[in-house]
Amino acid sequence: MIKPIGSDTLLPLFVYDPEEHHALMKEAESLPSVTITSPAAGNAVMLGGGYFTPLKGFMNVADAMGAAEKMILTDGSFFPVPVMNLVDDDAIASIGDAKRIALRDPNVEGNPVLAVMDVENIEKVSEDQMGVMRDKVYRTDDPEHPGVAAFMSQGRNAISGPIQVLNFSYFQTDFPDTFRTAVEIRNEIQEHGWNTVVAFQTRNPMHRAHEELCHMAMKDVNADGVVIHMLLGKLKPGDIPAPVRDAAIRKMAELYFPPNTVMITGYGFDMLYAGPREAVLHAYFRQNMGATHFIVGRDHAGVGDYYGDFDAQTIFDEEVP
Amino acid sequence: MIKPIGSDTLLPLFVYDPEEHHALMKEAESLPSVTITSPAAGNAVMLGGGYFTPLKGFMNVADAMGAAEKMILTDGSFFPVPVMNLVDDDAIASIGDAKRIALRDPNVEGNPVLAVMDVENIEKVSEDQMGVMRDKVYRTDDPEHPGVAAFMSQGRNAISGPIQVLNFSYFQTDFPDTFRTAVEIRNEIQEHGWNTVVAFQTRNPMHRAHEELCHMAMKDVNADGVVIHMLLGKLKPGDIPAPVRDAAIRKMAELYFPPNTVMITGYGFDMLYAGPREAVLHAYFRQNMGATHFIVGRDHAGVGDYYGDFDAQTIFDEEVP
Repeated sequence: MIKPIGSDTLLPLFVYDPEEHHALMKEAESLPSVTITSPAAGNAVMLGGGYFTPLKGFMNVADAMGAAEKMILTDGSFFPVPVMNLVDDDAIASIGDAKRIALRDPNVEGNPVLAVMDVENIEKVSEDQMGVMRDKVYRTDDPEHPGVAAFMSQGRNAISGPIQVLNFSYFQTDFPDTFRTAVEIRNEIQEHGWNTVVAFQTRNPMHRAHEELCHMAMKDVNADGVVIHMLLGKLKPGDIPAPVRDAAIRKMAELYFPPNTVMITGYGFDMLYAGPREAVLHAYFRQNMGATHFIVGRDHAGVGDYYGDFDAQTIFDEEVP
Repeated sequence: MIKPIGSDTLLPLFVYDPEEHHALMKEAESLPSVTITSPAAGNAVMLGGGYFTPLKGFMNVADAMGAAEKMILTDGSFFPVPVMNLVDDDAIASIGDAKRIALRDPNVEGNPVLAVMDVENIEKVSEDQMGVMRDKVYRTDDPEHPGVAAFMSQGRNAISGPIQVLNFSYFQTDFPDTFRTAVEIRNEIQEHGWNTVVAFQTRNPMHRAHEELCHMAMKDVNADGVVIHMLLGKLKPGDIPAPVRDAAIRKMAELYFPPNTVMITGYGFDMLYAGPREAVLHAYFRQNMGATHFIVGRDHAGVGDYYGDFDAQTIFDEEVP
């Protein structure tokens, strides 16, 4: 199977040993804690599941700026977007000089602990630095852009350091039959006996053209199978309900794909709507889950008219180092 | 694929619609609630995942007695063990005459809501009835038997009625890569394209004889695949840690089974240690998860010297209606 990025084995930050997990849950209750932002919580879930291997936690400002500007971190390794834990001044005051803190989940009632963090550094992020990251990652400074709005609404203090993840937020509890970690997807690819694996990103039921895209991609690279990998998350009014979406995709797979060629799975993350740059991130974590190929669609991960139809494809030749 | 028992489709009691789920979580906070017993919580998790299809919730005393005495419920349908929500007098006093209550999880810190229940009936269970159920299900009245001890230590009030399940307790959070619902296992069997499917029960890493058992069973029934289905749960001192067990089983599958013939999965339940009767329950829920055949081992689900080595096999011919 294809290796994870920057590591011989996947490095999920979830704590798999039940005894250690229990001890950390106990420890967390007595630690100073901050309720993190929704984008940071999405990052923690991805880190927990191994999708962001080899990252060990949240980036400091130098790494985040490197990721935004050149997709290169200070140690020379590749990562396509900043992965930051940005909090406001009140949060910083509340943790004082604690070296170990609990990160609470903003998306679950009661804000339960999502992860425990070793605080390596707390840095102020300047408006200039926020602006550079925004412009580079989203290619726009429009405050109406949903990704820009979510990014800029965060605090201006970056807490960096390694984390230990204790659950998968509402993604695993709300979508128990669909949510998968990268560990699980690698395990299942192994069980299927696939070597060449195409990944397909979707948020919605797949229509005929999506189905054909998968067939064409599989034929093109002589793939053993395709992993349909759904972005799971809170629905907006008018969205197709998750159980309907899942059932529709399963029926398509059953009717139009041979046996042992499709896996139907999902992952939890706050969509960035960053178009080209998000397509690179999508490709990054698909390698980590064991896919050898990834389908980048028209206006992939785009929103409104911010990106050209094929920008998310050309970025791989033009900007990815 | 083989049909579930007593139903054309699986009937998981987990609430899959995220909006309905959220509304129920909110409702639950204002309902009278009881912290249920660990065996009842295990039943709720199995009901949630569809394993106990077509049950809709917890049995009343007549159904539980029928299950214990003849494995037949009052409507004539088959179920091999009582599935009861037994609580003490204080719990009954605390819910008053509420028609709808929240069931809290005894196995998770803070006792979060596990399910919401419509109270159809509250009945006193006599010591005679408890004794009959104990003798029939466990084949012993020895209070040292761990299953008997767990059963008899419960309260003497049976709350019966349908439930809606809201999470999978600590099983899904502690074992995120292994825990599966019956819905998921059916989905994955479909993805694999298997028709004839053997299920194998284990709590431990598999040794050479277990591996051979699976090979022999698969050959015997010309199976497309085997689902290794681990009982997940709290470990006792000296138990093999879960990540080690999982890794050992995965390595065995990789080295000694052809591709696309093994799935490695787990389920959450409080073991009954009821030997023969539990073997029937094991077979029951393996059909619901889509297995056509189930391997019953020597002293299957037994403990100590309570059961003969092959009682769990002969019960299928001698007692199952």
